[in-house]
Amino acid sequence: MAKGNMLIAQSGGPSMVINQSLAGAVLAARKSGNVGRIYGALHGIKGIMEERFIDLRKETEKTILAVAATASSALGSVRKKPTPEDCRVIFDVLRKYQIRYFFYIGGNDTAETTHIINEEAKKAKYEICCFHIPKTIDNDLMENDHTPGYGSAAKFVACAVRGDDLDNRALGGVKIDVIMGRNAGFLTAAAALAKQEEDDGPHLVYLPERPFSLEKFAADVSAAMKKYGRCVIAVSEGICDANGTPIIAKFTKEFDSHGNVQLSGTGALGDLLADELKKLGIKRVRADTFGYLQRSFVGVVSDSDSEEAFKAGEAAFRAAESGVVQSGSIVIKRKPAKKYGVSYEVVQLRKVAKVTRSMPAKFINRTGNNVTQAFIEYAAPLVGPLPKTARFEQLIKKN
Amino acid sequence: MAKGNMLIAQSGGPSMVINQSLAGAVLAARKSGNVGRIYGALHGIKGIMEERFIDLRKETEKTILAVAATASSALGSVRKKPTPEDCRVIFDVLRKYQIRYFFYIGGNDTAETTHIINEEAKKAKYEICCFHIPKTIDNDLMENDHTPGYGSAAKFVACAVRGDDLDNRALGGVKIDVIMGRNAGFLTAAAALAKQEEDDGPHLVYLPERPFSLEKFAADVSAAMKKYGRCVIAVSEGICDANGTPIIAKFTKEFDSHGNVQLSGTGALGDLLADELKKLGIKRVRADTFGYLQRSFVGVVSDSDSEEAFKAGEAAFRAAESGVVQSGSIVIKRKPAKKYGVSYEVVQLRKVAKVTRSMPAKFINRTGNNVTQAFIEYAAPLVGPLPKTARFEQLIKKN
Repeated sequence: MAKGNMLIAQSGGPSMVINQSLAGAVLAARKSGNVGRIYGALHGIKGIMEERFIDLRKETEKTILAVAATASSALGSVRKKPTPEDCRVIFDVLRKYQIRYFFYIGGNDTAETTHIINEEAKKAKYEICCFHIPKTIDNDLMENDHTPGYGSAAKFVACAVRGDDLDNRALGGVKIDVIMGRNAGFLTAAAALAKQEEDDGPHLVYLPERPFSLEKFAADVSAAMKKYGRCVIAVSEGICDANGTPIIAKFTKEFDSHGNVQLSGTGALGDLLADELKKLGIKRVRADTFGYLQRSFVGVVSDSDSEEAFKAGEAAFRAAESGVVQSGSIVIKRKPAKKYGVSYEVVQLRKVAKVTRSMPAKFINRTGNNVTQAFIEYAAPLVGPLPKTARFEQLIKKN
Repeated sequence: MAKGNMLIAQSGGPSMVINQSLAGAVLAARKSGNVGRIYGALHGIKGIMEERFIDLRKETEKTILAVAATASSALGSVRKKPTPEDCRVIFDVLRKYQIRYFFYIGGNDTAETTHIINEEAKKAKYEICCFHIPKTIDNDLMENDHTPGYGSAAKFVACAVRGDDLDNRALGGVKIDVIMGRNAGFLTAAAALAKQEEDDGPHLVYLPERPFSLEKFAADVSAAMKKYGRCVIAVSEGICDANGTPIIAKFTKEFDSHGNVQLSGTGALGDLLADELKKLGIKRVRADTFGYLQRSFVGVVSDSDSEEAFKAGEAAFRAAESGVVQSGSIVIKRKPAKKYGVSYEVVQLRKVAKVTRSMPAKFINRTGNNVTQAFIEYAAPLVGPLPKTARFEQLIKKN
């Protein structure tokens, strides 16, 4: 690869560890002899088009590591799919700044944008390395065992539901927790990590991978109330009816530039489900929508997620520097060994761009209202240990 | 005080540290020679009426301390104001079990119940010590500098808003965070602890202590958007219009047995406020309602709150054992010294029962849309240090 300057940016929804990936790539670049200037574009490709850069050689390593440990996207983010005209503007800027290494951190929409820029670069015969660094709390990127950002968000969800279950135990009734996840139920499923004893919640888990019906929901909750005298429910914001229409789509009309309906930042779904259960005569029904706290709550982070996010950034720079391939997306693969471990590989951008993956069938129970033990075994090492909680021995039901 | 058995129970909304108070009282009682059996009633006075007790001498000290460090009410809770008929049933049970020490942990409704039981006991000439142990994340108990449960909930709110502000910085627009607090704005005000730099959020803080108008709100947000290019707002679920009617009351009709309207467990207020701002033409407006996570999230606790909750429980038992007064409520007073410290005193139950306190005027700014430095100085030691966060030096605006 020719020597040149480097540009890195962040895109899509923030996560607890997206700055670890930024730090991983930047610190590796700073140690390399192949890179000149290292620019950070503000707010993704929007910042490139507007030439809003900061100089990432100017920041101390101490600051970079402190930023790495900070939630949300330190360079700012954007949700923008570049048009052909945008791409022309972007290339003009890349040429002007002699950028030969471009790294874009984000989810599948970000991978798609990286892919588009890479394809346009090829057409323009502009020599540049374009690498996508994975990030998504949804855990829905193709080719990956799991994605940076998921473990920490999953830890937040598990901690929240563990506490919520204790809260529900104290006051009874039904508690509904609406959890992020557009098409993939991985984050909602993480609620199940909260469970320790047989009668612990969540008692029901609804995922976008299975059609949701209000009738089945009401019947499930009635059965759980009968069995446990209370009920804690984890439900994905992305649940759809049998026709594939998001339940929430009936209540909102906001779409982003990638054509996705707005699911988060509203309590409408939780309120709808709660109203449905009140019709059954259940007196105390409460719904919380975890919302943006899941992706940027300060102070809850999974150690392995944090480490892997950093290493994914590092791996992206090394892949670019090695010159084996000119572009690609870093993916995380789980080693087949019994002890948890991962490796970082490079796949073609188009394999990660646009299409997402969802929960495999083996992670969802037959009745479609909970997860399986296989999911717990999959997710537990990504989240790590939860804070310890205890109950009085006399109150723990023995089987 | 005559020797006898002891009964302890929990009531009202759970908190992160309510079990510390339980442990403080129970462990002190176990070390005392003046107490026979130590019963824990399940679900407050409901459990007393139904004789649902556990034996708190049977649990190991290790278990009690592990439960102390666990969120929510380990004995279960209840929201119930006893009728005269209930009181008769309760006395029958107290006599049957020879209870001479009664401790009830909770907020002002719990203090009121303790007071009612104590008054009825006097009428019935039944000799019993009745003590209320303070707990409320709302921080609204009379006579107290602050209450156990507040510091930890405030820490959760500050961590959430700190992360949320970083998130909003990345993607822009307006973010509304709806925070618990019926009549007192203390918990919502704690959002201000998230702020480090001048341009950090929360940029606006709305409290139940000041009348809320949608017009003023819209004008405030427009001004903040002009100044910061984005806006993070902390708003109390209990905000009222100029007539004192809760804004949310227009959307819900659920009341508890103390006559309070249901404010939590619904996202309606956040959605209403978001819709109002969308009318102004602000493109990206999101609202999260923190809900029950604020009082039972596993893993976020203030060290001083935790310690004080334990000591308040201990103080209640010691006050009862000393026999100086036959009943009372433990209150926390702040020492006037520069270095933060507290003492535990006993006041009459009626002084804490029913009536609540709200934020003093000195804690609220003149325009009624933020807190003052005096509040920050008041609240900071109750919450303790927040997790460290950092930004790139080049992105921090210098004044």
